[in-house]
Amino acid sequence: MSTTAFHYLHHRAEPLLLPNAWDHAGAAALVAAGFPAIGTTSLGVAATHGLPDGEGRTREQTVALARLLAPLPCLLTVDIEGGFSDDPGEVADLAQELADAGVVGVNIEDGRGQGSLAEPDTQAELIAAIKERVPSLFVNARVDTHWLGVDTGSLAPTLDRARRYAGAGADGIFVPGRLPDVAAVAEGVDLPLNVLYLPGGPSVAELGALGVRRISTGSLLFRTALQATVDAAVAIRDGGAPPREVLSYADVQRLIG
Amino acid sequence: MSTTAFHYLHHRAEPLLLPNAWDHAGAAALVAAGFPAIGTTSLGVAATHGLPDGEGRTREQTVALARLLAPLPCLLTVDIEGGFSDDPGEVADLAQELADAGVVGVNIEDGRGQGSLAEPDTQAELIAAIKERVPSLFVNARVDTHWLGVDTGSLAPTLDRARRYAGAGADGIFVPGRLPDVAAVAEGVDLPLNVLYLPGGPSVAELGALGVRRISTGSLLFRTALQATVDAAVAIRDGGAPPREVLSYADVQRLIG
Repeated sequence: MSTTAFHYLHHRAEPLLLPNAWDHAGAAALVAAGFPAIGTTSLGVAATHGLPDGEGRTREQTVALARLLAPLPCLLTVDIEGGFSDDPGEVADLAQELADAGVVGVNIEDGRGQGSLAEPDTQAELIAAIKERVPSLFVNARVDTHWLGVDTGSLAPTLDRARRYAGAGADGIFVPGRLPDVAAVAEGVDLPLNVLYLPGGPSVAELGALGVRRISTGSLLFRTALQATVDAAVAIRDGGAPPREVLSYADVQRLIG
Repeated sequence: MSTTAFHYLHHRAEPLLLPNAWDHAGAAALVAAGFPAIGTTSLGVAATHGLPDGEGRTREQTVALARLLAPLPCLLTVDIEGGFSDDPGEVADLAQELADAGVVGVNIEDGRGQGSLAEPDTQAELIAAIKERVPSLFVNARVDTHWLGVDTGSLAPTLDRARRYAGAGADGIFVPGRLPDVAAVAEGVDLPLNVLYLPGGPSVAELGALGVRRISTGSLLFRTALQATVDAAVAIRDGGAPPREVLSYADVQRLIG
């Protein structure tokens, strides 16, 4: 599938709902359910391997997952945390590796370990390096101010970061977290705005009306699956009933193909 | 944790409920929920890697998962399908590799690809090879007659296989599938009997009263998680509410440790 198609999905009347997967079965099931594009979740990738999230320790697992999911009939964008390196050349190498595998987009975040933010100019260099090496790759530049609760007194630092990343060639801006004014962020950002879907928050349609072009589920599906796993096991142990509607063994075999 | 402890769990008043995991996060969450022992599910291992189940193609992924889960504070038993080889020496090598990683038990099935069963004597040789190489490993010998619907006109072929595997040194017998008379199988098998938990079937307590000593969830938790993943994504897309109770990001970070 082409990168052009993925760009197009950010510029339709309806916002793009992007579910995030962490293994082949989940991604295949989401594609079978009709989602045209799939993201990955770094929390899911990290936790399934027993590694911490957001500390740059899952490069190998991230690339392996991308290779596993790329053959699926969908558009695939990959969460590369902070790029797994401070060196622009190494981050560009990763982008090339992913694009060669068939990936059409990446998410790169300016949050770093221990709740800190990268310097915006340093982060802009990583983005520019990716776009220079792989111009067709959709680079979703994540601004972690609201995710980490840093520099959130006004929208100015968030919008300033977004402008610098746009200037470096980013194709979209992702501002995860609970935003005080989604419409103001969408208005203040020249690129398609991506936000996180938050349970209890606005619906996909409502976010679309506020100007959001892309909505990610982030780690929500992964956490939902994990909760369902434990809930079912505990229900069986305690004599309760496990969930009624469950994919059959044959359903899963069909997904594997 | 020791193999003795795992053997002991098969000889208590209450049957052992063994939930089956396929990644680190799920296993860690099940341990945190109080399960003393965890199995793996070959369907989960295969499907998360986009590979078919029960065709002997996931040896590498199975060993990698065992190494990933072995450090968890639980007793770990691993589903090795049919042993990933017809050669008793190679199957014993695998058992040694797993035991060296800290695994205390394995499941080995006599079902083969395309719905066929191994010759009982051939299967008994694999079991004997494992027990000779790693005597302390709890070998759960799976009899796939009822799982595959082969030789189920009477219980005799099932019980005959169970006896041969017991004679080869197996420590437990696993008869998955819907059994016409669970108590008769438990009565006819000299070793602890393991059955699959089936939604809508007898509860853990009821199976215990029928003489079952171990109850596996098989692929049920995996299929439940997969269903929950897709259901949540579709609910968000269609404007419905995703499930209310979900592990938080911080909960998952704590599980990773």
